Amino acid sequence: MNADAYSNFAESLAECGRNFYQRGWALGTSGNFSAVVEREPLRLLITASGHDKGKLTTDHFVEVDAAGQVVAGNGKPSDETKLHLTLVNQRGAVSVLHTHSVWSTLLSDAHFDKGGLNIVGWEMLKGLAGVTTHDHNEWLPILDNSQDMNELAAQLSALLREQPNIHGFLLRGHGLYTWGAGIQEAKRHIEILEFLLEVTGRIRFAQL
Amino acid sequence: MNADAYSNFAESLAECGRNFYQRGWALGTSGNFSAVVEREPLRLLITASGHDKGKLTTDHFVEVDAAGQVVAGNGKPSDETKLHLTLVNQRGAVSVLHTHSVWSTLLSDAHFDKGGLNIVGWEMLKGLAGVTTHDHNEWLPILDNSQDMNELAAQLSALLREQPNIHGFLLRGHGLYTWGAGIQEAKRHIEILEFLLEVTGRIRFAQL
Amino acid sequence: MNADAYSNFAESLAECGRNFYQRGWALGTSGNFSAVVEREPLRLLITASGHDKGKLTTDHFVEVDAAGQVVAGNGKPSDETKLHLTLVNQRGAVSVLHTHSVWSTLLSDAHFDKGGLNIVGWEMLKGLAGVTTHDHNEWLPILDNSQDMNELAAQLSALLREQPNIHGFLLRGHGLYTWGAGIQEAKRHIEILEFLLEVTGRIRFAQL
Amino acid sequence: MNADAYSNFAESLAECGRNFYQRGWALGTSGNFSAVVEREPLRLLITASGHDKGKLTTDHFVEVDAAGQVVAGNGKPSDETKLHLTLVNQRGAVSVLHTHSVWSTLLSDAHFDKGGLNIVGWEMLKGLAGVTTHDHNEWLPILDNSQDMNELAAQLSALLREQPNIHGFLLRGHGLYTWGAGIQEAKRHIEILEFLLEVTGRIRFAQL
Repeated sequence: MNADAYSNFAESLAECGRNFYQRGWALGTSGNFSAVVEREPLRLLITASGHDKGKLTTDHFVEVDAAGQVVAGNGKPSDETKLHLTLVNQRGAVSVLHTHSVWSTLLSDAHFDKGGLNIVGWEMLKGLAGVTTHDHNEWLPILDNSQDMNELAAQLSALLREQPNIHGFLLRGHGLYTWGAGIQEAKRHIEILEFLLEVTGRIRFAQL
Repeated sequence: MNADAYSNFAESLAECGRNFYQRGWALGTSGNFSAVVEREPLRLLITASGHDKGKLTTDHFVEVDAAGQVVAGNGKPSDETKLHLTLVNQRGAVSVLHTHSVWSTLLSDAHFDKGGLNIVGWEMLKGLAGVTTHDHNEWLPILDNSQDMNELAAQLSALLREQPNIHGFLLRGHGLYTWGAGIQEAKRHIEILEFLLEVTGRIRFAQL
Repeated sequence: MNADAYSNFAESLAECGRNFYQRGWALGTSGNFSAVVEREPLRLLITASGHDKGKLTTDHFVEVDAAGQVVAGNGKPSDETKLHLTLVNQRGAVSVLHTHSVWSTLLSDAHFDKGGLNIVGWEMLKGLAGVTTHDHNEWLPILDNSQDMNELAAQLSALLREQPNIHGFLLRGHGLYTWGAGIQEAKRHIEILEFLLEVTGRIRFAQL
Repeated sequence: MNADAYSNFAESLAECGRNFYQRGWALGTSGNFSAVVEREPLRLLITASGHDKGKLTTDHFVEVDAAGQVVAGNGKPSDETKLHLTLVNQRGAVSVLHTHSVWSTLLSDAHFDKGGLNIVGWEMLKGLAGVTTHDHNEWLPILDNSQDMNELAAQLSALLREQPNIHGFLLRGHGLYTWGAGIQEAKRHIEILEFLLEVTGRIRFAQL
């Protein structure tokens, strides 16, 4: 990939990060964002660890290979790079985005015993790739949180084989992952799923 | 309409879109916005489908005729163009705005069985065109959601004949439509109704 | 008052309006803001009616005399000019600000039967002029809403005589009024009272 | 410290203040922020009292010595300077930040009888200095509010001796204090703790 295109990808991801920070979905250095810049061999641009997402710039990304080793850029790649690589490989995702909102944190804990959330009947679901009607049942699974990224990546890999139709998943007490065929699609998925988590959370917490 | 005026309408609508996006009322490409640029023959400027409302510019609009066919601009007009045309024709609206907030989504589902919401006694009602006192009863009807736009437009048309005094309506699980004699009036109506939906929602969900 | 000073007052008030709009406290042309530009004879700068508070500029103000008649500027003064004049006269206020938030709307209705709200013990109370400790009892009275501004101004006048220590009041279903010895003090009072209304509302609505 | 470095510290703190104001965590002149600019002898840069945090600039800071006396800058140092000095001395903190959000205000009162809040199991805890897993138990103690700063500083000093592992504390009805080895770390701690207070508050107030 030439330098211009690389910079466009990095700037688009940085813009997503600043936007999510402003909404309170990526406070305190939480959140991580990636995009595939080459497929053969795999090169993934991903946020370096520990940066303030409200001030994210193109300097805060590193490029890693299929094994998660840094091949360009300064800094340590996000702890969760293996999850990004799993999604890129098994789903063919071009971009993977992870946010950490209040509602995803609450619901990923409250619904953990049920294994996930069913999101059904809302028009906003139509914004997910391939969904053409509000009359859709989206299953958003919840994986238990772990600091062992090899174990977590293995669990994710199994989940993706079992659930070929999902558009995202939650980590318990940790937040939302989604992806897309491009950065804009992945960003749209974040906004749709965060919106639907707020809707679901407000209904559940009021015990209607 | 000359190019300058056209551009002013498009920029005003684009500004509404960016404003609503920022408030979380038009996430994930949801929301659509229109304005009549000519009456004879009818020319309606309307958002093209699938654009990020946070980055809406004058390039993201198309012009359609009375049948909803594109006569200028690039892209596919919003799926809900027929609803806009129905409002423009039956109400003489100059601008139609549709938002998709958390509160309108929640309440349009929770009150669907009652056919709508009564909004009564709030000062904010005075901001609706023709309302001169807080001592006013605004009926906000709810139509069932559908992907069949001909059917939905027919239902809307019947509703508008039965309810000549309404200022807006909800689509179930989908959001708010309102309109006005100009873009600024329609924007004012969005803000008023979204505000009153939040007030109504917070009372209902706390079960006072 | 010379033109520069006038412009500074108008710009400061316009900046307050844009700030409050952004927080959702002055949607849909709600809210009105004033400042005394001369005492003898009285000249009050006040928002003209019907403007979008998100785009408020120095052009959106008129100057009125002690009787509320326009002496400078274009437009109709806010409907509630008489309330501003009452506060300016009886309290010696230099600036009067009125916001219309979700929480003030909710609580002014929910507590109407009790005549007002007691706000007690919060550190934020120290920001009200003359309050030096959190161990303070602030009574925030609620007047019934009315479209008869002469009647409402008379009720307010009686209230101000009975309650010499209040820093603000609510109109039922309508919002918050506060004032100060300058625009910055009045703005501080708005922020403090809106904050405390949100705190009070969240506790009450959860029925702790 | 030379003038450039001083200005950088002041600008970083001012930027924090404007950011917190925008989120509603420092309304009505609430909140105060400091950073150590020299250790020997101690020089602490701290917000002067009474400024609008939404417009905070480098002019709104004073420099105090170990006794809290002003050695540079204009204005009165924050009332709570003694608490900042206690944290700087006993914890070796380089920066101390105090916010005043709705959730910290609510919870510091609601949990006062229990002496504090346990925050357990959330991924966001990993952003606190020295915490490496979500499987962490963070105790956030609550001190009673007081206007006697000598007494409050003595209570804080005792608390810090008893609780060597805490990252912050609440003042009842008043808000959150946290600190860090630099301004960015302290800011990160504010965002993390405010996020976790909102999560805790939404769960508690919904009485799940």
